[in-house]
Amino acid sequence: MIYFDNAATTWPKPPEVWQAMEHCIKSVGANPGRSGHRMALQAGRLVDEAREQLSLLFNISNPDRIVFTLNATEALNLAIKGLLKPGDHVITSSMEHNAVTRPLHLLQGKGVEVTKVACAGDGSIRVTDINSAVKQNTVAIIITHASNVTGTLMPLAEIGQLAKRKKLRLIVDAAQTAGVFNLDVPFMNIHLLAFPGHKGLYGPTGTGGLYLVDGLELETLKEGGTGSMSHLPDLPDLLPERYESGTLNAVGLSGLAAGLKFVRNEGTEKIRQYEMNLTSRFLAGAKKVKGLKVYGPEELYERAPVVAFSLAGKNSGRVGMLLDQEYNIACRAGLHCAPDAHKTLGTFENKLVRFSFSYFNKEEEIDSAILALTEIAALPNERFYEVKDSPCGC
Amino acid sequence: MIYFDNAATTWPKPPEVWQAMEHCIKSVGANPGRSGHRMALQAGRLVDEAREQLSLLFNISNPDRIVFTLNATEALNLAIKGLLKPGDHVITSSMEHNAVTRPLHLLQGKGVEVTKVACAGDGSIRVTDINSAVKQNTVAIIITHASNVTGTLMPLAEIGQLAKRKKLRLIVDAAQTAGVFNLDVPFMNIHLLAFPGHKGLYGPTGTGGLYLVDGLELETLKEGGTGSMSHLPDLPDLLPERYESGTLNAVGLSGLAAGLKFVRNEGTEKIRQYEMNLTSRFLAGAKKVKGLKVYGPEELYERAPVVAFSLAGKNSGRVGMLLDQEYNIACRAGLHCAPDAHKTLGTFENKLVRFSFSYFNKEEEIDSAILALTEIAALPNERFYEVKDSPCGC
Repeated sequence: MIYFDNAATTWPKPPEVWQAMEHCIKSVGANPGRSGHRMALQAGRLVDEAREQLSLLFNISNPDRIVFTLNATEALNLAIKGLLKPGDHVITSSMEHNAVTRPLHLLQGKGVEVTKVACAGDGSIRVTDINSAVKQNTVAIIITHASNVTGTLMPLAEIGQLAKRKKLRLIVDAAQTAGVFNLDVPFMNIHLLAFPGHKGLYGPTGTGGLYLVDGLELETLKEGGTGSMSHLPDLPDLLPERYESGTLNAVGLSGLAAGLKFVRNEGTEKIRQYEMNLTSRFLAGAKKVKGLKVYGPEELYERAPVVAFSLAGKNSGRVGMLLDQEYNIACRAGLHCAPDAHKTLGTFENKLVRFSFSYFNKEEEIDSAILALTEIAALPNERFYEVKDSPCGC
Repeated sequence: MIYFDNAATTWPKPPEVWQAMEHCIKSVGANPGRSGHRMALQAGRLVDEAREQLSLLFNISNPDRIVFTLNATEALNLAIKGLLKPGDHVITSSMEHNAVTRPLHLLQGKGVEVTKVACAGDGSIRVTDINSAVKQNTVAIIITHASNVTGTLMPLAEIGQLAKRKKLRLIVDAAQTAGVFNLDVPFMNIHLLAFPGHKGLYGPTGTGGLYLVDGLELETLKEGGTGSMSHLPDLPDLLPERYESGTLNAVGLSGLAAGLKFVRNEGTEKIRQYEMNLTSRFLAGAKKVKGLKVYGPEELYERAPVVAFSLAGKNSGRVGMLLDQEYNIACRAGLHCAPDAHKTLGTFENKLVRFSFSYFNKEEEIDSAILALTEIAALPNERFYEVKDSPCGC
């Protein structure tokens, strides 16, 4: 099988990820940060290792400012709902995932003002437009680092500068970029960074997290046992415990630590180079496929390794299905949990097919996919009847 | 090592649990409920299998009313904060875990009225006391099925009857009982059941869930991508998606499905019998240990396989440390994330040592532990200086 659905979750994982999980569940199976016995302390060290690896990757000086969540969606919910209060104004883009737009939509009903800066047809945003949207009561900018539909990279360093100048908080959704791009959190002036563990960091599902800049305090999303200062009726102020109520996914986080070590050993520069080479190869091949239209930026350096496209006259869902069933290519066709992005691109009705590459894809797979798309493009359009609303592919 | 910390998380797990996880991560590594390709559908089926196994275990007719969370704490947060509104009154017990007391404490600050019914010195509650606490604005009873400190079983069926009579919602924390006791949700009139996946159900960490009775709608805790109806600005009404924003822990849930199959194959009756036999053996042996005081009910049938005790004149934290370091017995000494329970027992200052048994413990281990405690009891009290606030053991 050719797996081009890495924007949903990367597969395969490096073998050491499973090995670490197996070791954890077989030999260090206790609850981290709870009991004081040696196995529990050992489990705690596995979790801390993931935190340390993350801090090294993102240039975060205090690993305890990274809190673990079920996934990036939970991290974004904690960041957005923990920060914003009624009367606050927040600026976001028209290319966001539902993990940003839906919490914001809920907050709008509770008195938070939201401005969605319109992005261009290739998904790009102009920093001047963000600047123009700033008002007296603006408290934050919330933006994806790269669109999960088109792979369009947002000018994060510049947006960070703007946030700094205007004294706004910058919340970044790094779902598509953590592990793929250098994310220097202090340099980029990021205050809250939400990331999944199971995409570019090659950890398993059930892992994700949020970095909180020093001194920033959020309303908690969940309260419960923290394993320390249990006598308090409130959550302790201490991080990471304050935002990590309940038992952590120690098994998953031990896998994430191994994934992070893999990423740091290979180096994000090398990973990015490799994945962008695949992307470039695909984009070059796609130009020769009749009726294939790629969405997103022309320039490779403005992209993450995510490509969305359509075939003229052909229903995207049906193209995705054919790719899966007749060519054994796993990809994602639909709205990709990002209806705003599809509205921006003008593809809300017809949707798109998305290919997303990882470090484990091969050039031959790109070539096979181009061949498959060439064949599909040559099929009569009548075969591409509409497929009823299918899952969306986050 | 002797592992008596199963109330925090069970260990070891049945081999089929990690075998299922290995299969998932190696061969079905896609994102469930997102993309439409075969591997994603296969991942979805693994998750559905966990849901179906749970519905069979708890006698729930519609598996889609079970939603997955990171842990039982998240499930309790969703239940409590999703249900209660300012002006509502809720009744709980004085034996609850911080996963219940801390969300309630937060809600008290937002206008929710909370009555904590005082339990007896053995942790037991009188249903008449709950009945007396019902007021005009009471909407729910929130109660643990068994104390995570003393193992005291609450009279759930009776409380369910009361809830039915008074038209109250019943929220149950099954952290210590799911998989150990028959939990017949409709029979017990339970409206919201929160359970961990990694304790008595023998799944891995990173799994837990909440059952919601038909027709009951909660405020969501998190909003984001749901993999279906992505075009909506709000979350869809559809369950389980409505309460499962973001990528699920498919790897962990495939392990949970295997744990559940193990539990159902063995049978909760047999598991309970076995664990209560261990508990009974420990209680009998403990009677002969000088100065050992067991907390909780006298009668075995009023207990879960969790035993808390103290040794006269000896600091509990230090006893736990000795058990670990000199006898290789992993247990939990401290407040167990349940300060209210310790206040009820009168052990808030001196804390307790907790042993909690699983289906994988052996009678010989109980005997070794009794021997160890006999030796420790004979040591001069001066050796048991106070240990500074240590983790609490949820």
